[in-house]
Amino acid sequence: MRFDSPEAFAAALADLPGPDAAVRDAASARQAQLTKPAGSLGRLEEIALFMAGWQGKARPSLDRARAVIFAGNHGVTRHGVSAFPADVTVQMVANFEAGGAAINQLAREAGLDLHIVALDLDNPTADFTDGPAMRADECLNALNRGAEMVDADLDLLAVGEMGIGNSTAAAALCARSLGGDVRDWVGPGTGLDATGVAHKVAVIKRALAFHAGAPHDAFETLRRLGGREIAAIAGAVLAARHARVPVMLDGFIACAALAPLVAQQPSLAEHCLAGHCSAEPGHRRLLHQFSLTPLLQLGMRLGEGSGAAVAVPIVRAALATHNGMATFAEASVSGKL
Amino acid sequence: MRFDSPEAFAAALADLPGPDAAVRDAASARQAQLTKPAGSLGRLEEIALFMAGWQGKARPSLDRARAVIFAGNHGVTRHGVSAFPADVTVQMVANFEAGGAAINQLAREAGLDLHIVALDLDNPTADFTDGPAMRADECLNALNRGAEMVDADLDLLAVGEMGIGNSTAAAALCARSLGGDVRDWVGPGTGLDATGVAHKVAVIKRALAFHAGAPHDAFETLRRLGGREIAAIAGAVLAARHARVPVMLDGFIACAALAPLVAQQPSLAEHCLAGHCSAEPGHRRLLHQFSLTPLLQLGMRLGEGSGAAVAVPIVRAALATHNGMATFAEASVSGKL
Repeated sequence: MRFDSPEAFAAALADLPGPDAAVRDAASARQAQLTKPAGSLGRLEEIALFMAGWQGKARPSLDRARAVIFAGNHGVTRHGVSAFPADVTVQMVANFEAGGAAINQLAREAGLDLHIVALDLDNPTADFTDGPAMRADECLNALNRGAEMVDADLDLLAVGEMGIGNSTAAAALCARSLGGDVRDWVGPGTGLDATGVAHKVAVIKRALAFHAGAPHDAFETLRRLGGREIAAIAGAVLAARHARVPVMLDGFIACAALAPLVAQQPSLAEHCLAGHCSAEPGHRRLLHQFSLTPLLQLGMRLGEGSGAAVAVPIVRAALATHNGMATFAEASVSGKL
Repeated sequence: MRFDSPEAFAAALADLPGPDAAVRDAASARQAQLTKPAGSLGRLEEIALFMAGWQGKARPSLDRARAVIFAGNHGVTRHGVSAFPADVTVQMVANFEAGGAAINQLAREAGLDLHIVALDLDNPTADFTDGPAMRADECLNALNRGAEMVDADLDLLAVGEMGIGNSTAAAALCARSLGGDVRDWVGPGTGLDATGVAHKVAVIKRALAFHAGAPHDAFETLRRLGGREIAAIAGAVLAARHARVPVMLDGFIACAALAPLVAQQPSLAEHCLAGHCSAEPGHRRLLHQFSLTPLLQLGMRLGEGSGAAVAVPIVRAALATHNGMATFAEASVSGKL
């Protein structure tokens, strides 16, 4: 899938395919025969049906599971909105490539094929407090860099991000797309103190005021307040939907990338699982808006796809039981009285 | 570890070793240097320190991880307290041995070496509504069958159970050990309706009244209201503590096995992780009494170690990041501003 224009992106967002209901029903019929009390595997059963429906396979697989971490730099960092210097984005990309970051270890444990996509790190987006973060062509390019990481034969796509300053962009995207008090969307990110958080709120309010009169469609919001890695995640998740590839979401920023899309198309996240609920306070609110219940709540707040990766073994557990268990008849086990 | 008498069991429960604080501190010092904002891996960091302290290794391992599922039959089933017939216990043990049950698939995914210990299934415990479930020698034997499944070089022990009727025994153990309204400890088990649950409450109240005047120490409560698989779990967890082997607990019944021990020795569960919070309503209350926060809340209620097994990959994720990540210095990543 390619987005050749803002209009092509809007058209892709307007016309979303659903899961295969017949295959999901077949998977559900199988679940009912497995050697366990009905429903006793809880969300594992739901996940198996979810995967069956989107993959179109009554016995879904997780052989081709990919994690993609998109990285970008942000002009808004000039306002001192992060606890870490902007240089850390490029340093962490080198760490990803050398295998030393959290996501390297977590992707290996989860059986995820890890891809790192660094997006023009030497050229940060513009400071969005007094102009759009990206030109339209920059935003389209980032959307397409995301979309091109989706192959139709993937069993699962996990998305993550790295970008010093991007929790500021994420909070701005949420506030503009979904409303509410700006403070409800802002947290410490990598480790701001209370003064730092208050400053971040003020910076975001300035940005929202600057862009208030601009069109509020998903593309305009993404290009004005987003970032390259954020737009890439949006492009990847939308392309995955059209390919019926299920998605494992990560934390606040990866989810905030979808906020403008969900505001325009409420069913956008139906092919997504929420890997975890981050400690970043806006994340819980955002997942609620997406109608997603997180698989994990472990107080993680790292980004880089880490929460998504930790959740993938739960999907493996769901598929292993769904595909591998004996039926009551096969095992000669008596049913309910 | 062997328990040769009720007194030996009580002595083992009275004198519990703690984790290695110096090793835990060394692990904590390492965490502080890894390429992530401090604390950003949340509970993964806590788990790494927990494992380090109990294993006595600053870089803990998970190479020898064992799951043991204990099975037993219960005389109290004569009162119709389960939605499934008592024959299912032996049928499910055959299913475990043939590889067709949920735990077989989940243990394989989690890298757990699975052991099934069937405890005298042809000889159910006595009906505890009008007498003790076990003689003292039967209870000691079950405790020892559990303890002998613990090798000192295990990196982790996951415990689970199978036994039609054992959620009735579990609720009785909790109510007698920890107090509260009997109804707060009783749930549908494998699938009772509201009438069935009310009947189960009445059966448990009768049993509690019968045994009310007996000594309330852990051993007497276990032998009077427990079952063989339940006592085996208690013996395994206590032996694991003395071997400093960390334990992954499963659901309501596996945890209820510890209720009499915790009532007598509140620090008993400190070497344990709670794999999940079951849908069985008493489990949340029980974990709170143990001061344990569950790793997962997926609405599971199967037993057989299933929730523990699904949680083990979270421990793998914790150790993979703790052991495998680069430090700020190694990766030349800038620290916090």
